[in-house]
Amino acid sequence: MKSQSDTKQKQPINWQYLFAPASVAVIGASNTPGSWGYGIMNHLLTSKKRKLYPVNPNAAEILGIKAYASVTDIPGAVELAVIVVSAQRVLKIIEECLQKGVKAAVVVSGGFAETGEEGKKLEDEVARIARQGGIRFIGPNTMGHADTYSQLSTLAWTWETPPGPVALISQSGNYGHRIIHRGMISGIGFSKFVCTGNEADLHLEDYFEYMAQDKNTRIITAYIEGLREGRRFFQIARETTASKPVIAIKGGATRGSAKAAKSHTATLAGSDEIYTAAFRQAGVLRVDDDDELCELVTALLYQPLPRGNRIGILTIGGGLGVMAAEACEKEGLELAPLASSTMEKLDDYLPPRWSHGNPVDMAGISMAENPVIFPSLWALMEDEGVDAVLLQAPVGANTNRLATMFDSRQIKAVREAEENSLSALGKRVKQLGKPVFMVKPAVEFATDPEVASLFSREGIPVYPSPRRAAKVLNHLAWYRRYLSPPAQ
Amino acid sequence: MKSQSDTKQKQPINWQYLFAPASVAVIGASNTPGSWGYGIMNHLLTSKKRKLYPVNPNAAEILGIKAYASVTDIPGAVELAVIVVSAQRVLKIIEECLQKGVKAAVVVSGGFAETGEEGKKLEDEVARIARQGGIRFIGPNTMGHADTYSQLSTLAWTWETPPGPVALISQSGNYGHRIIHRGMISGIGFSKFVCTGNEADLHLEDYFEYMAQDKNTRIITAYIEGLREGRRFFQIARETTASKPVIAIKGGATRGSAKAAKSHTATLAGSDEIYTAAFRQAGVLRVDDDDELCELVTALLYQPLPRGNRIGILTIGGGLGVMAAEACEKEGLELAPLASSTMEKLDDYLPPRWSHGNPVDMAGISMAENPVIFPSLWALMEDEGVDAVLLQAPVGANTNRLATMFDSRQIKAVREAEENSLSALGKRVKQLGKPVFMVKPAVEFATDPEVASLFSREGIPVYPSPRRAAKVLNHLAWYRRYLSPPAQ
Repeated sequence: MKSQSDTKQKQPINWQYLFAPASVAVIGASNTPGSWGYGIMNHLLTSKKRKLYPVNPNAAEILGIKAYASVTDIPGAVELAVIVVSAQRVLKIIEECLQKGVKAAVVVSGGFAETGEEGKKLEDEVARIARQGGIRFIGPNTMGHADTYSQLSTLAWTWETPPGPVALISQSGNYGHRIIHRGMISGIGFSKFVCTGNEADLHLEDYFEYMAQDKNTRIITAYIEGLREGRRFFQIARETTASKPVIAIKGGATRGSAKAAKSHTATLAGSDEIYTAAFRQAGVLRVDDDDELCELVTALLYQPLPRGNRIGILTIGGGLGVMAAEACEKEGLELAPLASSTMEKLDDYLPPRWSHGNPVDMAGISMAENPVIFPSLWALMEDEGVDAVLLQAPVGANTNRLATMFDSRQIKAVREAEENSLSALGKRVKQLGKPVFMVKPAVEFATDPEVASLFSREGIPVYPSPRRAAKVLNHLAWYRRYLSPPAQ
Repeated sequence: MKSQSDTKQKQPINWQYLFAPASVAVIGASNTPGSWGYGIMNHLLTSKKRKLYPVNPNAAEILGIKAYASVTDIPGAVELAVIVVSAQRVLKIIEECLQKGVKAAVVVSGGFAETGEEGKKLEDEVARIARQGGIRFIGPNTMGHADTYSQLSTLAWTWETPPGPVALISQSGNYGHRIIHRGMISGIGFSKFVCTGNEADLHLEDYFEYMAQDKNTRIITAYIEGLREGRRFFQIARETTASKPVIAIKGGATRGSAKAAKSHTATLAGSDEIYTAAFRQAGVLRVDDDDELCELVTALLYQPLPRGNRIGILTIGGGLGVMAAEACEKEGLELAPLASSTMEKLDDYLPPRWSHGNPVDMAGISMAENPVIFPSLWALMEDEGVDAVLLQAPVGANTNRLATMFDSRQIKAVREAEENSLSALGKRVKQLGKPVFMVKPAVEFATDPEVASLFSREGIPVYPSPRRAAKVLNHLAWYRRYLSPPAQ
């Protein structure tokens, strides 16, 4: 990573102007569907919390709102300017913003450092002028930012997520959007989202420091290509991870991807090994992609950290058990040997053909209505040698499937029993401090909305495969060790 | 793997009796919803192609069909018997089947070798008696089998897949069902499916040989825990993979999972390294799980094999490009350097800020209506140094999303342009013999059914992440090298 070379004097940051401004001007607002200036206006219009001033010299109105030829023509105060004009015009616009007394800006426009030497010069000049005049800004070359609590969005594309406890800082607009959309389908709410762009003024580290202090944010996530202030980043991380999990995707681990990162954000990807070591030392959870990030977020939000990495597996089939055991061991988890008292309890509940070991293969007990799944689960959870459990049982079968075997009265009884059992499970997870993850035995389990909502109501994460569940459990076990290292 | 120790004399196999019998008796048929004897009857009843005789001494009718107290009471001939009674009764039932002249059987009943020494003795005795009398059988301890062309299913649970070219042999019933259901959501049709159970008589290798000859089967897939006839398996594999791809999941690669496999199917998992080497030598494509299996099947069915492993990436965003490049390189693919003629074409089509290299980052061209995506794709495909392309562009956006930016006339135009372009893409893939995979830029792309069907109509696989697409491409490149090794 690049060491801190950025010692030039900066103005203090008033984050209020950036994330909860009372007034916003959109310079380059447009009536043309599909354009950035249209998309941004569209999104800002979804909130009535602030004054909104479109600026466009060629339109009297933008999306039904009176437009101004220049930011200096706006009658009221402007706290935040969103700038979406060609690169060549940005410098002049910044000067007008300074003249107007604008406090902060989001420079969406591209055509700066990412295009080469000349763009870099222009970018430096924009940053110098803004800094002199006291405007702090996001970008340039950013896809915008958002705050669900203040109801601000300068994004041109979708931002329909409900408020929630997860912040995202992204050095890629597109990858940031990818994470947000992936999170939405997992029911993850975001507090703040910022695409850092070229970071000519505000750096990823500035946003990180801000979100570390933000009371609406319980987990900080980041997509990183290269750090401009590596030392500072890891200092903030060390201080933050003790109370807030920090999850990072670091792109550019391979030769070609590092080259692509350099071309993309003009950052040096740096040695991947050094990043890995530094993340671990600072307690940062490093994940491979958006799937793993969202799956880890869900577990951190709703499940306790396991005391260790010894896993119990409760499964409906031998092959499923083999594959789940393999996934756990490949991800660095251990299969817990079962206590003899646990074996005795399982002998009581399960047919004689059960596997008599971990993974606990219930050996094809018949579907859904069977009352032994949850007692077996309690037995596993109560075993002192088991730190966490993967449940891969026929719970939450698709209603259409059940209908091929049962009548509606029977299906209702199955659902009621499942609801009661899952509610009891939610309580036991908290009591015992042991995480339990559901792993789908097959793709159609826990997909019907009413069933999926039972799992999410009780905070039981549902994973599509044992490999993905095991990855997340390994992260949790590692984070627990980081926070509470075993006594020497 | 265990070497062939099974030299006892076996009867020849008449597969017709097993996979397309004219008459079936279900011994242990039941009227109790949720029971195996009920589920199996239910499935057999979906076809009118054969005579069906439920056997149950305590019922006059099963699911509305006249029941018999014993298989010997059935008036007509019985080609296949499905046996779903307790283990202790199976020997007697087999003797009755022999008396009746039954030709083949599926022994669903569990409680044999998988339960220990005593069960093993009983299983050996059942196999001995059946063999002497000339009954070949699947199982015991099997979840059944199916043939979509003859419309036979002895499965107790769902089997709603349409006929198709993929056969599945599974040493786990539950994992087999998992693969089938995962395939169904990918639109994969299966020809035959067999859960091998304990393989007391018919071995995985027998089914493999049969499916290698089956004209309805173009790809053979298998879930394997341990081979009883390893030498024979790899002999068949070598002969088969030259014309039919063979894809295998091999469970039990780790210590705990190997132990679980031994407990499950009483097979020795064997050294994972030896299996890996043997699979490679025989041209068997080894995959990690059901997701990878189904994603590879889709590619093999509809895409050509690439001439090499040099990949071109066409992407809408810098971060997406970085992550896609990293995924490709981590999976062993190479990023193709672009020819200068390709660079010139791309300079013509793309805005000046494009990445000027591979990955080709189109740098945020505006959404969906933009006409440069496909010309850029043709340029990449025509580059002599590019063997395959990952397309991660905003094609097939969710209609709801488009509706936030465009009116219905515009959306219609977008869809028509996409349909024409995808149709042209399907043709070019065939002409040039270069595979093209769509990778979703974000989760909501190519999800609307009308859009998804455009991709599948043209045989363009859609993958959720670059990592998963890269894994599949690497398999294709490897298989091509296996089939046509470069000249020495």
